[in-house]
Amino acid sequence: MPVTLVRDNYGKERVRLVKVTRHHDRHDIRDITVGIRFEGDYAAVHSAGDNSTVLPTDTMKNTVYALAHAHPLDEIERFGATLARHFLGATTHVSRARVEIAEHAWSRMIVGGRPHDHAFTRGGDARRVARVTGMRDGPGERLTVESGIRDLVVLKTSGSAFEGYLKDRYTTLRETSDRIFATAVSAIWRYVEEDVAYNTQWHGVRQLILETFADHDSRSVQHTLHAIGDAVLEQCPEIAEIALSLPNKHHLLADLSPFGLENANEIFIPTDEPYGLIEAVVARAR
Amino acid sequence: MPVTLVRDNYGKERVRLVKVTRHHDRHDIRDITVGIRFEGDYAAVHSAGDNSTVLPTDTMKNTVYALAHAHPLDEIERFGATLARHFLGATTHVSRARVEIAEHAWSRMIVGGRPHDHAFTRGGDARRVARVTGMRDGPGERLTVESGIRDLVVLKTSGSAFEGYLKDRYTTLRETSDRIFATAVSAIWRYVEEDVAYNTQWHGVRQLILETFADHDSRSVQHTLHAIGDAVLEQCPEIAEIALSLPNKHHLLADLSPFGLENANEIFIPTDEPYGLIEAVVARAR
Amino acid sequence: MPVTLVRDNYGKERVRLVKVTRHHDRHDIRDITVGIRFEGDYAAVHSAGDNSTVLPTDTMKNTVYALAHAHPLDEIERFGATLARHFLGATTHVSRARVEIAEHAWSRMIVGGRPHDHAFTRGGDARRVARVTGMRDGPGERLTVESGIRDLVVLKTSGSAFEGYLKDRYTTLRETSDRIFATAVSAIWRYVEEDVAYNTQWHGVRQLILETFADHDSRSVQHTLHAIGDAVLEQCPEIAEIALSLPNKHHLLADLSPFGLENANEIFIPTDEPYGLIEAVVARAR
Amino acid sequence: MPVTLVRDNYGKERVRLVKVTRHHDRHDIRDITVGIRFEGDYAAVHSAGDNSTVLPTDTMKNTVYALAHAHPLDEIERFGATLARHFLGATTHVSRARVEIAEHAWSRMIVGGRPHDHAFTRGGDARRVARVTGMRDGPGERLTVESGIRDLVVLKTSGSAFEGYLKDRYTTLRETSDRIFATAVSAIWRYVEEDVAYNTQWHGVRQLILETFADHDSRSVQHTLHAIGDAVLEQCPEIAEIALSLPNKHHLLADLSPFGLENANEIFIPTDEPYGLIEAVVARAR
Repeated sequence: MPVTLVRDNYGKERVRLVKVTRHHDRHDIRDITVGIRFEGDYAAVHSAGDNSTVLPTDTMKNTVYALAHAHPLDEIERFGATLARHFLGATTHVSRARVEIAEHAWSRMIVGGRPHDHAFTRGGDARRVARVTGMRDGPGERLTVESGIRDLVVLKTSGSAFEGYLKDRYTTLRETSDRIFATAVSAIWRYVEEDVAYNTQWHGVRQLILETFADHDSRSVQHTLHAIGDAVLEQCPEIAEIALSLPNKHHLLADLSPFGLENANEIFIPTDEPYGLIEAVVARAR
Repeated sequence: MPVTLVRDNYGKERVRLVKVTRHHDRHDIRDITVGIRFEGDYAAVHSAGDNSTVLPTDTMKNTVYALAHAHPLDEIERFGATLARHFLGATTHVSRARVEIAEHAWSRMIVGGRPHDHAFTRGGDARRVARVTGMRDGPGERLTVESGIRDLVVLKTSGSAFEGYLKDRYTTLRETSDRIFATAVSAIWRYVEEDVAYNTQWHGVRQLILETFADHDSRSVQHTLHAIGDAVLEQCPEIAEIALSLPNKHHLLADLSPFGLENANEIFIPTDEPYGLIEAVVARAR
Repeated sequence: MPVTLVRDNYGKERVRLVKVTRHHDRHDIRDITVGIRFEGDYAAVHSAGDNSTVLPTDTMKNTVYALAHAHPLDEIERFGATLARHFLGATTHVSRARVEIAEHAWSRMIVGGRPHDHAFTRGGDARRVARVTGMRDGPGERLTVESGIRDLVVLKTSGSAFEGYLKDRYTTLRETSDRIFATAVSAIWRYVEEDVAYNTQWHGVRQLILETFADHDSRSVQHTLHAIGDAVLEQCPEIAEIALSLPNKHHLLADLSPFGLENANEIFIPTDEPYGLIEAVVARAR
Repeated sequence: MPVTLVRDNYGKERVRLVKVTRHHDRHDIRDITVGIRFEGDYAAVHSAGDNSTVLPTDTMKNTVYALAHAHPLDEIERFGATLARHFLGATTHVSRARVEIAEHAWSRMIVGGRPHDHAFTRGGDARRVARVTGMRDGPGERLTVESGIRDLVVLKTSGSAFEGYLKDRYTTLRETSDRIFATAVSAIWRYVEEDVAYNTQWHGVRQLILETFADHDSRSVQHTLHAIGDAVLEQCPEIAEIALSLPNKHHLLADLSPFGLENANEIFIPTDEPYGLIEAVVARAR
């Protein structure tokens, strides 16, 4: 029976790396996790067990460590581009090499009121991410660079309503003009062109997400998600498109009436499941 | 600045439900987790905060509980189809309603050598899953039904080699004709038509995955992945396509030479990261 | 200011090891995770930074791999005892060496109706554990051997009530004569003497836990916990004491009344938090 | 066969609560998770299924929500004490009521350069904890208050050595005068007397942990752990005893020699397992 390989990819996930740069007066540290994914002409690998075109995932891992030696890792997007270009050059069989990097933040410790030269505390859960996709393009190559953030957990205690929605026989939710709105924003955005000031862009988008979330008069998670996308595209001409994913971290009002107490929007029960999930991709209209 | 909503979806994740069916001589139990995702014409929700077309995710959750009351839950694919059809009928704004169900296995306890009528032990990590996508199709609707399995952890101690691969300056991996091959198979397959004997199909595919994994003379993870896809499409004419994802759960040979001991492929160090990830979609050629 | 070191311990956690034993007609596999903890005379290590008495935790790890080479790993209690004795002999500074081993079950795969000689599927979440504590005792040493099980998840749909409890102004729970009782049993028991048939004991206790859970007419989690302890001590004269920990995996009755449906103890919502936790140690009275 | 209940406890874990305090010009938020554990005279509950003395764990949960209504939650130690005292008064059967509270930090968002009045970002992984144990003491009661911190992740790139340790035939670790030292500090300390300025104490101890970690000339994890305990007891006369737990988050030097590169302590591979674990309790000498 004839069988077709519709799509395939392979690679290495969770390559962890810490680089210490030892300046004269201070040490800097970068902490990243890298994932690599190859797509290409690998039908014979699958069907015939012919490994002659397979760059082992172990070699991918080694390559990350070796190339990090010379690279400053100052912007994960640039290290991702270096890796993607390298992999396209390493074998002609790969047609598309995708590199994803997550960066774990460390903050320089403050000791005696001054930044310490070699001690750090771990930052929060939010991770900066980059995704660089290198594609073979005739004799050359083409790169797509995306930046993003994962799990930026935010909460506001006012300025969020959910009213006027569709009701049917299974609806029990009460409309509210004032609820807690909590979410873990994940966003990833694509640049119009490669080679922008990635650090500046990233911090700018992060701040726009925070400010829009804080100040938006929210009628729904969708409404705020779109306002964030709007603000980013409005303020950042370098960005072509942004994908946003906002899980609704529900905070249920505790029922204190059995105890003769009124709960004036004060005591909430945060819950992990079930949870609403709202996602969209917003782009600059052409 | 004009902004476009390229794509959007919303829904409820992790709706957990246990149904007890109380037969005369025994109780049956079903334990599922449901996720629901709507796509449709929701631009005004996003841009204008107009909620009039939004079926709340809380209502989705209620609907799962209400519809499970009448449904036997004997095959999760059928319950998924019931939910998908209901949601398409609940609002004209949704154009695509996707329902994902994971089933957590419980085994009837054996007490005094006999199956117990109301006590159970939890099955392993592997979960049966179903994904039903309902799409509006003119005045009617169209359903796509997929079945799958997640995290079926398997290991073989022989019959797995990895040799003859591409080498470059960053390659240090040694070729081996005999390694441990361990993975957590995740697979999802689409049926040619709706309404097959889902339970029979599922158990058949699971057994084919196990047997192919066990007996295949593996030259690489890709090679075995493809052999599994081949076997499933060959044996199951009801299946049109299967997607497979095989993380390589590496087992490194412990270096005992510093202690004057020879490690004849006996003592291994299992590691979680980094790990290789091999994925492909295999279809019946037309 | 004089400061006292009240108590201290150090060691290595999560040493993972898979051993393949290659018999003529089949392979056997053992998959364990080892933790080691030393207590002893380590005041100077702490206060003066004098490392001369410190066996590095890296050496502990190496020792596990080296000693597993010769050991059959047929009973984790015996391998734990081997390690504990070795460590007491490795340095005179350790007064107490505790070794904890968790074993991850693999089941031999059934292919073509027959047990496969080298392919396995991963067992469930429940892990067999052993804890061996070696203590220096004059010129010799003394070992305490404990066996246990972790996360044996069980559920019964009948035979469990919770009534007649204390009520105060904050009580809203309704009494019930028929609820779902689900828990993840963790137990650890101490033997009267070292050197019993550990495998036989372990399987016997596991079966007693299952059968008592299934058949006990439960008035509370405490009531069933105690019945389990009772049964084990009654049936197993080799066991001196058993500690049991039973988290209550609550299953809440879904309220279907808003939808005009009666929920006759059929549809439940399993929840992870908050959860009740019931623990006790039961011993043979002297 | 006579069986003895050696020890028993029961309670509720993971009671989650968010309290919003709505001041005129800003909102404050507290986010805590509470665990409650009762010990007492519960033999009849266990052996006879007599529930008449059991305050249900569901009532414990309700009590947390009800008492949080009136309490400012300004210091978790005080809320813990309120709960512990309440529970001792709620039933005469409990002889010891332990309340553990973990607080999850939220930082006020900075928008337009100013602190926002109702929007917050989630703090890092480190959690402030409190443990209050109420014991019946004749007609009255006695409280022990402890404060702590969990998972304060820190790293230093200099000032850490590990040399001069014991070597045996299984030792392969190389001595180093300069390694990365990373750990997740967990600490819990007991106050000499109840009713101190808990917030001030907690921030003081946290800063002492950070500063000692940063500046200590470390010869081992034990050495630094002890220096932290020393510093805390020296600087904080209100504290009687501190327990510290420091997992060694190993950073292995990547071997770049196969690629002709020298790794001058720059490129590291962080690993999660196996890991060293160093623990001690340090007290004020009497």
